Amino acid sequence: MPHKLVRIQRAHPRPAARPVMLAIAGDSAAGKTTITRGLVEALGADRCTAVCVDDYHRYDRAERRDLPFTVLHPDCNYVQIMEQHLQLLAMGQPVLKPVYDHHTGQFTRPVLVEPRQFVIVEGLLPLHTKLARACFDATVYLDPPEEIRRAWKVRRDTAERGYTADQVLAELERREPESAAFIRPQRAFADIVIRFAPLTRRAVPADTPLSAELLLRPTIRHPDLDGVVPEGTAGGPGTAIHLRLARDADSRPVDALHVHGDAAREDSEVVEKAIWSRLGADSGPPACLGRTREGQRTEPLAITQLLLVYHLLDAAR
Amino acid sequence: MPHKLVRIQRAHPRPAARPVMLAIAGDSAAGKTTITRGLVEALGADRCTAVCVDDYHRYDRAERRDLPFTVLHPDCNYVQIMEQHLQLLAMGQPVLKPVYDHHTGQFTRPVLVEPRQFVIVEGLLPLHTKLARACFDATVYLDPPEEIRRAWKVRRDTAERGYTADQVLAELERREPESAAFIRPQRAFADIVIRFAPLTRRAVPADTPLSAELLLRPTIRHPDLDGVVPEGTAGGPGTAIHLRLARDADSRPVDALHVHGDAAREDSEVVEKAIWSRLGADSGPPACLGRTREGQRTEPLAITQLLLVYHLLDAAR
Repeated sequence: MPHKLVRIQRAHPRPAARPVMLAIAGDSAAGKTTITRGLVEALGADRCTAVCVDDYHRYDRAERRDLPFTVLHPDCNYVQIMEQHLQLLAMGQPVLKPVYDHHTGQFTRPVLVEPRQFVIVEGLLPLHTKLARACFDATVYLDPPEEIRRAWKVRRDTAERGYTADQVLAELERREPESAAFIRPQRAFADIVIRFAPLTRRAVPADTPLSAELLLRPTIRHPDLDGVVPEGTAGGPGTAIHLRLARDADSRPVDALHVHGDAAREDSEVVEKAIWSRLGADSGPPACLGRTREGQRTEPLAITQLLLVYHLLDAAR
Repeated sequence: MPHKLVRIQRAHPRPAARPVMLAIAGDSAAGKTTITRGLVEALGADRCTAVCVDDYHRYDRAERRDLPFTVLHPDCNYVQIMEQHLQLLAMGQPVLKPVYDHHTGQFTRPVLVEPRQFVIVEGLLPLHTKLARACFDATVYLDPPEEIRRAWKVRRDTAERGYTADQVLAELERREPESAAFIRPQRAFADIVIRFAPLTRRAVPADTPLSAELLLRPTIRHPDLDGVVPEGTAGGPGTAIHLRLARDADSRPVDALHVHGDAAREDSEVVEKAIWSRLGADSGPPACLGRTREGQRTEPLAITQLLLVYHLLDAAR
């Protein structure tokens, strides 16, 4: 009998490695860039690709003057193209990304974006559609109190974008209905909701950094902090860092990790090391975390960023 | 016995309709835009999307001055992004296409391109890679004699792009090695090779339009012209329009359809009607075909365009 022909199956060429994708959603001046900057520094710029999806605006500033909506509205953005590019990046493919110049309010030449190991996507609407959300390994929503965000936006837009304070406040008012309709609903889709706010329950010096409240939803696996971070009480001040089983505004159960603005570096280090040890890393956590726009280190920001670094590294394992 | 559970399969939502994709490749000033314009007019602008892949240049004109290659070189283009966008268009998806301004030599704001029923892709390198070629239903290479193309390029670039004739000729010389290395090899991948050239074998008035030689490769199914178009002889003048079984320069068998520049409108109409009748259409062929850059109708151009319209409509059936 003749030998049966055996067709040798050649191995397929190795597909492009898929990056780890993190979304950081939030309203204008909610602190997205500050958070992102620390993550890129901690992980190394050579391993990170940071993408701002506000570059997917459909109209430039001059065109928007005649339109009945602001940049917060999905119709003011190429949402379908944003989804397409996020999908391509998630599959390890490059994209030619549009570029919107915040200074001139115009579109400039697009840039080639090739996904490195970690892709950090920040902007107004990265969690707006199901298809976009499906691209991410972890999702974050920045949720500062409105009065804090207003102060940040006035400070930034007057200092860096050439507006007067009155102009910024008028724009905030104009945007409010769309913020409520399109930006804030993304909070419900975040694995982690981050709220920086002043300590209110006791008197602290005026220059005390903002505290962080991190809502850790059970939609992804968080580092186990039970036994490391003391259990806080709902009403009392608790310790400077504490974990609390709580219900979110929508009544879903969450772990709420509080890091008070006046937390001592020693207490913070205990928590940082506990989070870091879950990764099985030899060295300690990155020392560069927690730096504010002003270059000052704060413990609430450091722990917040470390938690996100944890999730990026954990997803890459 | 309990009833077996029957899971009702819901129909998938209808995917985006896939367009018919035609590539028109060729060197600079080979006549791509003139051919494309006639096709869009014949099919209707509302049914066509015309894409120029020269928009995928990687460097602007100022940057290219310091580079060791010209725009003809694949390294001077985002070939991978071009492939990606062609694939997306072929699947009926929109793309945000870069835009290169030939007048300023700079990149401007990208545009949303949504594929209509027919997508006509013209440019320098649409057939350069296998992945790009795989996106097309039919492929065309424009192959005018070099002296004709030079004359066309000098005329266009001096009239419309602000160059002197000497500058254009110097640029042609600089590009020649890359034209040989990257542009002309695409000819081998075309289903149809189109050559407009003057009649040389007999004396004709000076204003006689250029003749067309159409090499019809058996890589796609062409309209059957046997019995409609007389068989020409290799050496003799034949009739004004004739078909000839031939070998291409690479010795592969082809049908060579010749349309002489002085072909009479009546002869041309017989051939046009024969091609058109193969589609089973009620009405006659579009009357707008065959218009040159100068607005003059020529029979060789009309038959060339009609053949391409035939292929687009045939693929859409």
